[in-house]
Amino acid sequence: MLFSTQDIDDMPQRYRVHFINSLSGFKSANLIGTQDSLGQTNLSIVSSVFHLGADPALMGMIIRPHSTPRHTLENILETGSYTINQVTCDMAKQAHQTSARYAKQESEFDMTGLTPEYLPGVIAPFIQQSPLKIGMKLVEQEVLAVNNTVLVIGEIVSVCLDQSALNQDGSINLDKLNTVAVSGLDGYYQASKLFRLSYAKPFKEPEEIED
Amino acid sequence: MLFSTQDIDDMPQRYRVHFINSLSGFKSANLIGTQDSLGQTNLSIVSSVFHLGADPALMGMIIRPHSTPRHTLENILETGSYTINQVTCDMAKQAHQTSARYAKQESEFDMTGLTPEYLPGVIAPFIQQSPLKIGMKLVEQEVLAVNNTVLVIGEIVSVCLDQSALNQDGSINLDKLNTVAVSGLDGYYQASKLFRLSYAKPFKEPEEIED
Repeated sequence: MLFSTQDIDDMPQRYRVHFINSLSGFKSANLIGTQDSLGQTNLSIVSSVFHLGADPALMGMIIRPHSTPRHTLENILETGSYTINQVTCDMAKQAHQTSARYAKQESEFDMTGLTPEYLPGVIAPFIQQSPLKIGMKLVEQEVLAVNNTVLVIGEIVSVCLDQSALNQDGSINLDKLNTVAVSGLDGYYQASKLFRLSYAKPFKEPEEIED
Repeated sequence: MLFSTQDIDDMPQRYRVHFINSLSGFKSANLIGTQDSLGQTNLSIVSSVFHLGADPALMGMIIRPHSTPRHTLENILETGSYTINQVTCDMAKQAHQTSARYAKQESEFDMTGLTPEYLPGVIAPFIQQSPLKIGMKLVEQEVLAVNNTVLVIGEIVSVCLDQSALNQDGSINLDKLNTVAVSGLDGYYQASKLFRLSYAKPFKEPEEIED
């Protein structure tokens, strides 16, 4: 089935949003924890967090300023601080609920029953229930001219992780954490490992490796 | 287990690369198909493709110019054209192998046994074996000052999809396509659906919905 530019342009708006959002494949599910300068906390689910570099340790994410993570962006700009908390299968419904349009004084922590936790050196709240939490410092924000979304780049300042999921080579066993994968706007998936593969070299088939 | 900035700085280089690459959670696996102006084809696996917007229909990806997708970036700049092809579980080993450092005249299509396919309106080659293929037109490339990675933004010009995976509301059933999810540098996962959830509204629990 081949869709042309014209076919995509002709899609009803909501259909198109579902379609285009599904195209990139599986995405991470992270809850972004923030608070404003008065301590009012906020949580929002973001599926656009991506690895940007290991040294310096950087992560990026895309925020749509006019949708629900608006308070998130305001708080990040106000305090320079945010947290990235992996969503597990058990937390997926609570995480999804943070995308509802709550008023600023209604903290998504209270609304979903997730528990704020504070760790040294980071102003923003973490989520106690998350087995992989990352403290972030804002490095740069940039409005992308193509569609006015905002690229937020941050530096990793701390990582809190269930030790059982850390492999000998530094990689993390996401299936031991029961981390969820997301499809489109609202599809939640559990992942099971097929294999890890050896570093690829020309003219040599990759081999399955142990953790 | 809490890792401070200092702990991360003290990690051996390779350990750190594995660790930081794992932090964002599950990622998409996409093969980027390109060719230069002489028709020399190239494939490279990229795990940083992300949704950027539905209208206009845009996708972004991060390329490290000094690693193996170098030919990819050169070809995109030369022709303005590239394809994004979802990696299935069956193709994962071939996809991984495209990260080996082949010379420019060695096409990863030949090296991995994946088959180039050309579709109307797109110069770059698609992968015949992929059940979800996207034709892209370069809109913008930007070198990110924080670490000299390159943000490539493109517009979706065509989509080729197995019809069986398209839901009534426009979303795509990635598990019907057997799409793989990636963790870190080399972990490949199969995903199974937990549920889809209804559009979130304040003070109302999300409900599981059908495709």
